[in-house]
Amino acid sequence: MKKSFGARTLVFPTPAWLVGSYDGEGRPNAMAVAWGGVCCSHPPCLAVSLRKATHSFASIMERKAFTVSVPSEAHAREVDYFGIASGKDVDKFAATGLTPVRSSLVDAPYVGEFPMVVECRLLHTIEIGQHTQFIGEILDVKVEESVCDGKGAVDIEKVMPIVYAPEARTYHGIGRPLGRAFSIGKEIGARKGE
Amino acid sequence: MKKSFGARTLVFPTPAWLVGSYDGEGRPNAMAVAWGGVCCSHPPCLAVSLRKATHSFASIMERKAFTVSVPSEAHAREVDYFGIASGKDVDKFAATGLTPVRSSLVDAPYVGEFPMVVECRLLHTIEIGQHTQFIGEILDVKVEESVCDGKGAVDIEKVMPIVYAPEARTYHGIGRPLGRAFSIGKEIGARKGE
Repeated sequence: MKKSFGARTLVFPTPAWLVGSYDGEGRPNAMAVAWGGVCCSHPPCLAVSLRKATHSFASIMERKAFTVSVPSEAHAREVDYFGIASGKDVDKFAATGLTPVRSSLVDAPYVGEFPMVVECRLLHTIEIGQHTQFIGEILDVKVEESVCDGKGAVDIEKVMPIVYAPEARTYHGIGRPLGRAFSIGKEIGARKGE
Repeated sequence: MKKSFGARTLVFPTPAWLVGSYDGEGRPNAMAVAWGGVCCSHPPCLAVSLRKATHSFASIMERKAFTVSVPSEAHAREVDYFGIASGKDVDKFAATGLTPVRSSLVDAPYVGEFPMVVECRLLHTIEIGQHTQFIGEILDVKVEESVCDGKGAVDIEKVMPIVYAPEARTYHGIGRPLGRAFSIGKEIGARKGE
């Protein structure tokens, strides 16, 4: 029996990412976002949504660039801090001891300690309501060699990204492998002779 | 040491959702999507990206509505099948034995067996490239009572949503809880006297 929860942003899973940018004075900043995801394969693009009130909003509008740094489980506390504090008031990189690394491709910093980073140039700005969506074209993805498997592919079980649960406001790790896509469902079609 | 992977849609985590719609002949259909996420709090909105070639694309454009059904781990095979087969050729609900339930709020069906469904009216259509992004205003979220906790809140560990890993093309469950958001990071600010 399903219960109606009303018009809310209640859906699972959502990511826990840090969006990096330089502010008007060139200071590196980042903020935690859960409102985002991939939005196009060609050109490769991802979207993140920010409120205008955030310090990062003006930075991204000005520099037309941002990064997405994907944390590991071990950095959950730092990610949370980047979602609590504002770059208007404090240097979040200094407070957490994390390292802002200048992207060589876009005018934005990423988090040096995180296993995976995505560098984006701002492609579209979509006004939706409280949030503005920034669609970024992915120019490069950089990944620590330590989270790659023997064949050089990125291993999500080594990256150990963080999942955010809206409303409950909790962070979770990645769980057990459930199978290969475009593969485990094939037998359903075959079963029916399709 | 970070290694450059180039311009690719390689980022974790992404969701594994089924997007439901009625086609031109009123037949219920759904497809698996990983390109999507929440994109606004007020009005509550989520975005999913589809290629024009999909059967669902025309359906959503015509009906101006779609649903997002959030599967549990137990339905990973069915989700994969909905990503392999096309509603042009086959009735995916019949093939999987899943039940299309007509939304009373929007002109689209959702998956009756899944623990959590989101009903959306199409708000914006954004042409990006190979994919078109559909921004849907969330009109209701319906959740099985069996995945709620004692206080009536939705428990992600009971929903057991599926995480998709792009490029590796694997499905994963949700892992261990890592802490409460807007909470576990507070001590970092306090530590610095901020």
